[in-house]
Amino acid sequence: MKMIIHIFFILSLVSSISFASVQDFCVADPKGPQSPSGYSCKNPDQVTENDFAFSGLAKAGNTSNIIKAAVTPAFAPAFAGTNGLGVSMARLDLAGGGVIPLHTHPGASEVLVVIQGTICAGFISSANKVYLKTLQRGDSMVFPQGLLHFQLNSGKGPALAFVAFGSSSPGLQILPFALFANDLPSELVEATTFLSDEQVKKLKGVLGGTN
Amino acid sequence: MKMIIHIFFILSLVSSISFASVQDFCVADPKGPQSPSGYSCKNPDQVTENDFAFSGLAKAGNTSNIIKAAVTPAFAPAFAGTNGLGVSMARLDLAGGGVIPLHTHPGASEVLVVIQGTICAGFISSANKVYLKTLQRGDSMVFPQGLLHFQLNSGKGPALAFVAFGSSSPGLQILPFALFANDLPSELVEATTFLSDEQVKKLKGVLGGTN
Amino acid sequence: MKMIIHIFFILSLVSSISFASVQDFCVADPKGPQSPSGYSCKNPDQVTENDFAFSGLAKAGNTSNIIKAAVTPAFAPAFAGTNGLGVSMARLDLAGGGVIPLHTHPGASEVLVVIQGTICAGFISSANKVYLKTLQRGDSMVFPQGLLHFQLNSGKGPALAFVAFGSSSPGLQILPFALFANDLPSELVEATTFLSDEQVKKLKGVLGGTN
Amino acid sequence: MKMIIHIFFILSLVSSISFASVQDFCVADPKGPQSPSGYSCKNPDQVTENDFAFSGLAKAGNTSNIIKAAVTPAFAPAFAGTNGLGVSMARLDLAGGGVIPLHTHPGASEVLVVIQGTICAGFISSANKVYLKTLQRGDSMVFPQGLLHFQLNSGKGPALAFVAFGSSSPGLQILPFALFANDLPSELVEATTFLSDEQVKKLKGVLGGTN
Amino acid sequence: MKMIIHIFFILSLVSSISFASVQDFCVADPKGPQSPSGYSCKNPDQVTENDFAFSGLAKAGNTSNIIKAAVTPAFAPAFAGTNGLGVSMARLDLAGGGVIPLHTHPGASEVLVVIQGTICAGFISSANKVYLKTLQRGDSMVFPQGLLHFQLNSGKGPALAFVAFGSSSPGLQILPFALFANDLPSELVEATTFLSDEQVKKLKGVLGGTN
Amino acid sequence: MKMIIHIFFILSLVSSISFASVQDFCVADPKGPQSPSGYSCKNPDQVTENDFAFSGLAKAGNTSNIIKAAVTPAFAPAFAGTNGLGVSMARLDLAGGGVIPLHTHPGASEVLVVIQGTICAGFISSANKVYLKTLQRGDSMVFPQGLLHFQLNSGKGPALAFVAFGSSSPGLQILPFALFANDLPSELVEATTFLSDEQVKKLKGVLGGTN
Repeated sequence: MKMIIHIFFILSLVSSISFASVQDFCVADPKGPQSPSGYSCKNPDQVTENDFAFSGLAKAGNTSNIIKAAVTPAFAPAFAGTNGLGVSMARLDLAGGGVIPLHTHPGASEVLVVIQGTICAGFISSANKVYLKTLQRGDSMVFPQGLLHFQLNSGKGPALAFVAFGSSSPGLQILPFALFANDLPSELVEATTFLSDEQVKKLKGVLGGTN
Repeated sequence: MKMIIHIFFILSLVSSISFASVQDFCVADPKGPQSPSGYSCKNPDQVTENDFAFSGLAKAGNTSNIIKAAVTPAFAPAFAGTNGLGVSMARLDLAGGGVIPLHTHPGASEVLVVIQGTICAGFISSANKVYLKTLQRGDSMVFPQGLLHFQLNSGKGPALAFVAFGSSSPGLQILPFALFANDLPSELVEATTFLSDEQVKKLKGVLGGTN
Repeated sequence: MKMIIHIFFILSLVSSISFASVQDFCVADPKGPQSPSGYSCKNPDQVTENDFAFSGLAKAGNTSNIIKAAVTPAFAPAFAGTNGLGVSMARLDLAGGGVIPLHTHPGASEVLVVIQGTICAGFISSANKVYLKTLQRGDSMVFPQGLLHFQLNSGKGPALAFVAFGSSSPGLQILPFALFANDLPSELVEATTFLSDEQVKKLKGVLGGTN
Repeated sequence: MKMIIHIFFILSLVSSISFASVQDFCVADPKGPQSPSGYSCKNPDQVTENDFAFSGLAKAGNTSNIIKAAVTPAFAPAFAGTNGLGVSMARLDLAGGGVIPLHTHPGASEVLVVIQGTICAGFISSANKVYLKTLQRGDSMVFPQGLLHFQLNSGKGPALAFVAFGSSSPGLQILPFALFANDLPSELVEATTFLSDEQVKKLKGVLGGTN
Repeated sequence: MKMIIHIFFILSLVSSISFASVQDFCVADPKGPQSPSGYSCKNPDQVTENDFAFSGLAKAGNTSNIIKAAVTPAFAPAFAGTNGLGVSMARLDLAGGGVIPLHTHPGASEVLVVIQGTICAGFISSANKVYLKTLQRGDSMVFPQGLLHFQLNSGKGPALAFVAFGSSSPGLQILPFALFANDLPSELVEATTFLSDEQVKKLKGVLGGTN
Repeated sequence: MKMIIHIFFILSLVSSISFASVQDFCVADPKGPQSPSGYSCKNPDQVTENDFAFSGLAKAGNTSNIIKAAVTPAFAPAFAGTNGLGVSMARLDLAGGGVIPLHTHPGASEVLVVIQGTICAGFISSANKVYLKTLQRGDSMVFPQGLLHFQLNSGKGPALAFVAFGSSSPGLQILPFALFANDLPSELVEATTFLSDEQVKKLKGVLGGTN
């Protein structure tokens, strides 16, 4: 009898204090409109535990390429549950001699932790000062938002690192691709970088740039 | 004549400096897509003064329940005009012996002001320190974002308080319901709280939990 | 014996996972330097429950003045615990005929709830549209950040309201004081408001303005 | 041969590290739903360089009006590329004797730079203190968010300035229009500003207000 | 000769466009005052590469404790370079049967990636819904800000995970410690959680609580 | 007599509703500690109108240098009043053939308006797409935060532009200086950019780099 009353009370309690908390999370719905704050939110009734998990970081990226390295991001919308939550991760695989070329993340700072191997990493400040470290397994390093930085396998075997970002959409601008893998006219590249025409045209050839 | 010229000037003035200021406010349109920043905005042409007012806090909540208390929120989209404006309120009614159980607001800090009665309120910091106050009519207290806190009627008659939040969607996670009013398996509740199996199963029975 | 081991384990546990969480809160230290994010934080070791409570809203403000009204704020640093937490409150007392003149809060939106009496409140949008409501006890209204708004006792007896802000330092710029209670030269007031010289000088006389 | 291998590597590289960076920018799509963070984003595939450029500031505004001045904004969505990027500009043209009346921007601070002529500018703080400067060509001045400020041509010829805002939707509330160019009842204007009935009705007549 | 001129030009260039960029980063100076935005910044001239690196995550935490687990944070100020950059990491070590009890991070969302072993992790929403996943090596999961969540070693051997946060000071409130490891009076714990007096006193005994 | 009463009322009014609004602005005090949110605030009592004005943009920068161009920033603390207000400006002078090399602003987006001459400007997105415009007098263009961009005088005479940023400390990283004007070892520059050793060493020679 007491239990029945309890249940009655609980039901009335639920009706008096439960309410939709729409902003606990906002799982990305890639089909809806985007806003400056991120993707539209998936209908909360259709959200499941799978929206908050991601297996894409489990597998090593393919390092059979020019940089002998791979970046595997877990950003929104690939990892839909991170949308709007202000944090995301990525996986870096570097084969022997592998390098993540100089790049920036326009939208977030980054923390890296080495899981395997030895990584030489560095960033350059607005004052053009270089901050350079050789990191062993378990070592971590932070790269401030928007500054040029790189990671390079300075050990003998392959290297693995995970990197964290303070945004679910940190962005990634890779310098040599930004310079040499598009149709920015060579004379503009040269005028705005001081590189020689020969150098620019050679790297455009290698990286697929035109003009 | 002078007035006619004035009106002419004013009309040209309006055309030269008036423009839609879309972000004065963003009244919630619950039928549109949500984003990490909140609900879609209602068409400004259809916004009226009623979107900025809310009468739902005028009536006492029903305290005939297990906690002898009620929380009546005025969050978006119930109070549509608050959407995106970074502030909202709620009403707390506590009958004699009433208690708002330990809870957190994941998305905002809270300020409470006592309107009637005596309320014992407290919160626990990340360092596990307890900050406890007995508040009389007119007294206020602040609860930092995301920390466990509670309010309890420690007077003789009913108590009433209004609480303010620094978000239009502060969220509300009530501890005993989070633990005992869902299908989180009892062995997981026990392993992650150190509570006894007997205790967990008893409260699951009371609060409607399963598994 | 088992308990002894437990205590040993707990101590080692504390050492392995406890750490200072400096940003649970930042109680204002008015003697330290201020930053764009607010006041310096009081030494956490010296913070007590009293820093999170405030009794200044308990007493009615003195309404024996030209506006027959009083605003009693509970902002940082008066209410030190709110510093940096993104929320604060204030108390409005309006005697019969009392009015809070047109004003803005440059730093936050506001929600008002009527505790006693009848209040006519309104705000004006960037598009010069007026949103006007007469609020009874328990009614609430939201005023978007930075827009001109006012509250006026439209009932017979005194009125009382509490207002919440989405900042611990919302600011308060009261229009007639901004115009007529300082040394802004009358010709500049007139040129930038279209008010007559007679009107400006009269109100400067009343409100203490010079020049 | 080496080049062929390179190209093969590059293609695999692109597939391993390229990904959509949806939040580099969010060009306003005025037809989509708005959110508290701004306009919906235009489909990135349809974004062109023209979305990031705006010619609307090139032409002087029409100053043949009551204030002998014009404000030409370059805000979202007129300048679609600024949506969500936290910065925008506007152009101020002031004929001889021209004035931008007292106004506020609820959503952003402003920096002004004089391009031509002499401008007397000022703002009033929450403490009712006046900060007043006469600015020559090349001089700049900052106006903190939400505070009343004005600009007045204090030179002999026309004046031109560009102003920058820390938001793509700063808003603009012009004081005399907010007071006298809508249907806010005259008795409310008078009660909340201390202006005389005669003054209010006269300016309502001039600026088109009713009630 | 041409080079000499170049160097002359470069020097004048440096003087015309170089300037201190104080906000590239703000390495924590634990001796200076704190603000709501974080620690004071170390003098940039004294910042070295070591401020941006941290070796504290390299070593497994001591899991010889009641939870057979350890959390090793790399937050500011321990990892001084992360201060104000909006991202940080921590290391989770779980021996066989180890568990990170139910806890919240009041100031940030979290992404976890499993490096070794099998982890059962879950969180509870404001709507009291449970999101539960069993994660293998390389799997990741996101936990929205402020919501109760846990991690439990559900495999046979030890487990290791790294977790990322969208703040350099995410905070950490561990539920059983918040409830049972301080001086919050037992009757208040009981009234605000529905736990029995017997249960509360037993766990206070185990975890060191008083009152 | 009536006036005397008025003054009495006003004084009591001032005492009941005036209060320090510390966050209207936070003029930079370069001698105080910095925080992640910016410089310490100057004592408000010592703030004058001169803190909010800046004449440093009035004079053309010296373009007798390698890039035939000059950037003159008006950021905090040079322009102390902008500290923490989320907006700032800079002046670009480009002599005939002048160029602002590829650069990024890690902390803000930028809007440019051309005052004199013709400027070819462009930015490169994370997807390596180029957005390029030739801008005439009065034309404006927006550059999203953190992305590589440049400005180049493509007209016959000198060019002048003002640029606005959505931060008082946007930062400025100039690509060729970041690469070639510091001690980043040549082999690291080469490995992370694909540039040839000859090219790197030549530009290090020109720009003053070592190693």
